[in-house]
Amino acid sequence: MNADKIPDIIIGRLPVYLRALQRMADSGLKTTSSQELGEHVGISAAQIRKDISQFGEFGKQGTGYSIPFLLDKLREILKVDRIWEVVVIGAGDVGHALANYQGFKNRGFHIVMIFDCDKGKVGQKIGNFIVEDAEMMAEKIKSTGVKMAMLTVPASAAQAVADKLVQAGVKAILNYAPINLAVPNHVKVQYIDPSTHLQRMTYYL
Amino acid sequence: MNADKIPDIIIGRLPVYLRALQRMADSGLKTTSSQELGEHVGISAAQIRKDISQFGEFGKQGTGYSIPFLLDKLREILKVDRIWEVVVIGAGDVGHALANYQGFKNRGFHIVMIFDCDKGKVGQKIGNFIVEDAEMMAEKIKSTGVKMAMLTVPASAAQAVADKLVQAGVKAILNYAPINLAVPNHVKVQYIDPSTHLQRMTYYL
Repeated sequence: MNADKIPDIIIGRLPVYLRALQRMADSGLKTTSSQELGEHVGISAAQIRKDISQFGEFGKQGTGYSIPFLLDKLREILKVDRIWEVVVIGAGDVGHALANYQGFKNRGFHIVMIFDCDKGKVGQKIGNFIVEDAEMMAEKIKSTGVKMAMLTVPASAAQAVADKLVQAGVKAILNYAPINLAVPNHVKVQYIDPSTHLQRMTYYL
Repeated sequence: MNADKIPDIIIGRLPVYLRALQRMADSGLKTTSSQELGEHVGISAAQIRKDISQFGEFGKQGTGYSIPFLLDKLREILKVDRIWEVVVIGAGDVGHALANYQGFKNRGFHIVMIFDCDKGKVGQKIGNFIVEDAEMMAEKIKSTGVKMAMLTVPASAAQAVADKLVQAGVKAILNYAPINLAVPNHVKVQYIDPSTHLQRMTYYL
């Protein structure tokens, strides 16, 4: 199957498989089955086999999947067999948490800069970073060629900042501001909004 | 259509519609169309009409949707026409950010307690909260009847804490720990893991 034609919903599940497989590898496991992986991620074995088979024949009847092999393949497919530089925009509570977060290690990401427009925050130290002036954002992003950003500014500022990021060459935005962003088709956006996630559960309560 | 039969994927989109409609209302708009709403949320007008029509005839041919009416209906469907009490487990960076976050207001949620197992953190003030001892967690949750929790503990501790939350009566967990949780069928889990979200975009870069 042409990789361009893989549905987004399948691509969306691959990082979940990758994360679970990494945990299995960390605990010393060498092989797994779609059944076992399914129990870890709460997805049916049939769905997992179908998803993975979009990319080739990675499992063997009877012996299942080699975890190191499948990890390599998934990292290659998702292009996290390399390190992506990421900038953080906004040095508030969420920006702080991201700058200090150790969970990007070994998942393919490395924060390189953090910006804020508040002159009172510019120059402050957060973890290993010095908060930089948002006025320099576009220039720094262009000159370093960073393609990914995490946006943690207030909703009222998010669209304007996103426009600047896109103009500076950013192709993927993880948006923490509680607003949908309008971006060109070639730019990807993912959303993290705890209220939206909570509202996806209350329906069932 | 029986509400029990509405697919999860539709329920998952309703909070996004709700958030966009609330922003429209805040900016003074009274009516909208599936076309206009679609432009705000990046979803086709046809999909929006189909999703909303699952719950009744809320729009009028030619005049579109009344925003206040649709807001009320969506809040009712999602059960956020009331306030849900939520506990935060883990007083690290993410716990801090959540405790200080003002974005739960008017979205149906109210944080009532924050717990940590680190005796050095217990008693500390975070925003309006005093960090409470995780040893008291189950008892406090049972006695207050809280049904929702945000889990911000390390991956290694997350499953054990989730088990305790479920035993104490929690029915919905927003999990920030980078691990899939095994919970009974009647318990809902949503996941926030920035690395997973970033990995959903690198494929396309």
